[in-house]
Formats: sequence, C-alpha cells, structure tokens
Amino acid sequence: MAVYTEIGDDELDDLLHQYDIGRALSCKGIAEGVENSNYLLHTTGGYFILTLYEKRVNPADLPFFLGLMDHLAGRQVPCPTPIHGRDGAALRAVAGRPAAIIAFAEGRALTKPGPDHCQRLGAALAELHLAGSDFTRERPNALSVGGWRPLFEASRARADEVAPGLAAELEGELAALEAGWPGGLPEGVIHADLFPDNVLFLDGRINAFIDFYFACNDAFAYDLAICLNAWCFEKDGSFNATKARKLMAGYQGVRPLEAAEMAALPLLARGAAIRFLLTRLYDWLNQIEGALVKPKNPLEYLAKLRFHRDAGGPGAYGLDA
Amino acid sequence: MAVYTEIGDDELDDLLHQYDIGRALSCKGIAEGVENSNYLLHTTGGYFILTLYEKRVNPADLPFFLGLMDHLAGRQVPCPTPIHGRDGAALRAVAGRPAAIIAFAEGRALTKPGPDHCQRLGAALAELHLAGSDFTRERPNALSVGGWRPLFEASRARADEVAPGLAAELEGELAALEAGWPGGLPEGVIHADLFPDNVLFLDGRINAFIDFYFACNDAFAYDLAICLNAWCFEKDGSFNATKARKLMAGYQGVRPLEAAEMAALPLLARGAAIRFLLTRLYDWLNQIEGALVKPKNPLEYLAKLRFHRDAGGPGAYGLDA
Repeated sequence: MAVYTEIGDDELDDLLHQYDIGRALSCKGIAEGVENSNYLLHTTGGYFILTLYEKRVNPADLPFFLGLMDHLAGRQVPCPTPIHGRDGAALRAVAGRPAAIIAFAEGRALTKPGPDHCQRLGAALAELHLAGSDFTRERPNALSVGGWRPLFEASRARADEVAPGLAAELEGELAALEAGWPGGLPEGVIHADLFPDNVLFLDGRINAFIDFYFACNDAFAYDLAICLNAWCFEKDGSFNATKARKLMAGYQGVRPLEAAEMAALPLLARGAAIRFLLTRLYDWLNQIEGALVKPKNPLEYLAKLRFHRDAGGPGAYGLDA
Repeated sequence: MAVYTEIGDDELDDLLHQYDIGRALSCKGIAEGVENSNYLLHTTGGYFILTLYEKRVNPADLPFFLGLMDHLAGRQVPCPTPIHGRDGAALRAVAGRPAAIIAFAEGRALTKPGPDHCQRLGAALAELHLAGSDFTRERPNALSVGGWRPLFEASRARADEVAPGLAAELEGELAALEAGWPGGLPEGVIHADLFPDNVLFLDGRINAFIDFYFACNDAFAYDLAICLNAWCFEKDGSFNATKARKLMAGYQGVRPLEAAEMAALPLLARGAAIRFLLTRLYDWLNQIEGALVKPKNPLEYLAKLRFHRDAGGPGAYGLDA
C-alpha cells in the first residue's frame, strides 16, 4: 500500500448501513496492493475486501474497473465481485476517498509458481481476454508506449543514481521501442498487471485474478508479454523456457495466437519490461515516507529488458516461431 | 509491523502439517502490531493469526507470552488462544523466525473510545490482573524505571532534533522518577501495552485483549497508569477526566485500589508517559526503511508527561484521592 488510511468507527458503520451485508465484526488493514488501502472486513454477512482508492487511482476510471470485475465474474472468469449497495451502486466514499467493497476471494498468491501454474495462468488469461470482448466501457492504456517517455523524463535526471549509464540506456531503448512498436494486433480488455501477487491459487487451480486497477484496452499479446516477464524469470534472473512454453501452450489452447502476435512477442516483452522498469524507477526515486510496501528494485527489470533486447525472435524464449 | 517476512508456499504447508487445523485457503499479511509480522490465515479449520516474531522480541520470552495467553483464556479473560500443534507445542519456527498460530479474535479496535468503553476497559483490566495471580512464570519489566536511562542514552545525542531542549528535559524527568519511583505496591502480571489498538470491542463489549508481547510482572497500578495515558487524552492533547473516572470506577468495581496505589498514580502516569516517549523517540530517530507502520510521534507523550508532572495529585485527574 502506498498510503494507509485510517477508517473511523462511525465511518465504517455508516458505510455498512448502505449495504445489505450485516454489521462489522472486524476490519483489519492488509498489506496488499501497492496503490490502495485495503482492509479485510468481516461482517455478519461474510468476508470482504474494503478498498479505499488512494491518489494514484483516477476516480474517473473506477466505473471501468468495477464494471469490468462485474462483467468478468458474470462470465465465469475467476475474479472477485464488487458488492452493490442498497442503491445499486458499488462505488462510494469513505474517509474522503472513493471506496468499494469487494467479495473476499480465497486462494494464495504463489511465491514460487511452477510450470503447471504457468499453463493454468495462460489458459485463464485467454479466457479473460475472450470474456472481455463484449465489455462496452473503454480505457486506453496510459502505460503503453506513448506513456513511457513522460515517465522517463520524470526520472531521467536521477536515473544514474540507481545504475550508472541507466538514463542513456533507457533513452536508446525508448527510441527503439517508439520506432518499432507493433500496431494492428488483436486488442481488447487486458489485465495489464498480472504478476503472481495478483493471481490466487487454490488446490493448484486459479481461484481469482485480483487487482484490476491497471486494466485497460490494449493488444492481448501485450498482456501475455507482461506475464512472460512476471512469471517466467527465476529469482536469479535466468529465463525459464519451460514455464514460457507452458504459459503459451495454456493460452493457445484457448485462444491461438496469430502469426503477427507471435512475431511481435519479443518486442512486446521488451516494452513490458521497460514499462515496469520505469514505474519502479519512479517509485524508487520518490519513496513515500511511511509507505506500507517497500518499492521494488527497478534493476530486476533492467536485466529482463536486456534479455528481451538480445532475443532474436520467439525462438530465444524456447518458443516455436 | 517493523519488518514484513515473506512466507514461502512450502513453508506454510509444512507449518500447517504440524497442526490439526486443516490446510491453507489464504494467508494475508495484516498491517497490525509494531513488533512482529502478522498474517491472517484462513484454513479449512477456521481463521487464525499467524505471527512471526521479529528481532525485537526475545525468543526466550515467548513461553511467558504464549503461556500467559493460554492461562488467561482458561480463566475467561477475553484473549486469543495460542493453537497447539500435534506435538503439544504452540511455539515453532517459520522462515527462520519463531512463530505461533493464535485463534483469530473478532472485534474492532476503536479509533474514538468513549467513557463507557473506558469503564469496561477498567473492569476487564482488573479481571486480567486477578486472573494472572496464579500464573507461575515470571518476566521482569525491562521497560520500567531501571530500563529508561539506557533507552534515553541511546537517543540523547539526537533528542533535540525532535524538540529543542528535549534532552535536558528528559534528563531532569528521569532523575526525578528514579529518585521517587514508588515501591511496594501490589504486583502481578500486567499487560503493559494496553492501547486502544490492543483492545477489540464487539457490540460495545470487550471481546479480546491482544498483543501480549510487553506483558510482564509489575505494579498493577502501573498498568492502569498506562491506560490513563492511552485512553483518557483527547487527540487535541486535553485530558478527559470523565473517561479517567470511568476507567477507575470500572477497575475499582472489580479490584479496589489501595490508598498507596491511588496516591502513586500521578507518578506512575508520569513514568508511563516517559516510557512511551522514550521508545517512540528511539523509533523516530531510528526509522526502519520499508517498515510497514510509520513510527508514532514522540511529542504526543511529551505533552502527556508535562501534564502528569504538573498534576498535584489524583485530584488533578478528576479522581477523588
């Protein structure tokens, strides 16, 4: 959590009066999610996550996020459902912040996902992509290629504090990605932040995708490229081709990739790496005092970026082109 | 939490194999407790708190803390029960740290406790004191008068960074408290950290005292003096005599104070104020990067300390001497 908002006793009671989920038995702040304040709320009606949206989330985007979760849950994509109040609305305000109550999703985020988990992830991701096809709201991806340069400019002057030469390397990368970024690939709603933290497994199966607060419209293959980065590198930085093949096989079993998507994968993965490198770099250089979650080291993604830059094609990932 | 330890998937499964509480459905880090890493653990057997004891807790003290919780729970003092494994032990190790699983206690810590809550607190505190009388383990209070000077010395050189003149003021206070600290008061097991954070209310009643990791043997009236500090000042620093009277009435309804305890209260309250001032000062000056909980402002307790120093006797608290 970036910030941790305290909820007063009366505020919580007032909030619950707007719902049909009973009265509060306990409400504990949980150390989950980098962007928002999250509470595990137990009421006489069950277990829920109460999320207060902090300043990084644009309130205007919340109807997209909550509507998407409703939409996907209605199509059997494993994701928690926003709870609607007596007035029908899922979005309201607590402690001066936009807030929503979401059904609690069981399951554990894996610290060491294996190849079979990657295969299940691939299949479920393809199902998410298909299920989103008739979702009518749209949200452009602010963190795609057009958004990287402003983010870079905000960190450029101090980038070399993190690694000598980083500013120059990123400048070169950005220029290459801006020049070569693929267009015309199949698009739709993507999760755009599908790290192991955001996938809850139960008995080896995916029980819930969570944290839809980067979801947007973009190329499906870019979502897959984010997963290649987040799931297929080992802690020592090595790329696990077995996991990548399983991830792809799971995905293609549900939604086969077009040739153009497969060919674009190395560049998309390189873009995904710079996207997380840039946000981590910014967070690293602008640490929030008292933040509940320590910023992640941006250099992990510099190593991934270099791997993708040096990859000649899908074959470098152990994938058949 | 001072530090937040990540628990691996296998480590959690291995841990649960040592208990009869089923298998893990979810395990979420919670933003509670300054000293340890706490997780809300849901298993097929119910809800639990899994605590990993971080470096501030002396492992040698854990049998005292866990044994005390067992003892008190067995005497109907509202407190969560440590879960014993198949081998009978409540204390074991996870991720290289001592760890215990504790029954989950419902209830909400109040952000704005009122006079009636203070009365219930007083009564329950007296019951805790009586129930501890036949607990056989002992733990001296390392944070009583003898422990304050070393703590002060660790912060003295930088104390004036927090408030000009603070080092000199604390030096004078310490000398006065060391010279006049009362002895011979009725003693026993005290909680020693009974802030509103550590008392869970449900339907206006106390459902659980939690966080026994400062519990020790000391004067009962010192525990009450800690509560006077923690429950009877308003956020603007003013002392609420109504709350103090209710707290005392609740306590004395169960365990009447001796005349010497009543007479010692202002000095005990002054000591309790410097105890929390000193630990907060140390934590303020030695912030841990990435800590999950921001250190509390020590100056809140400087104001309280001054209030107690200027109090002529119990009458200054609205109490009848």
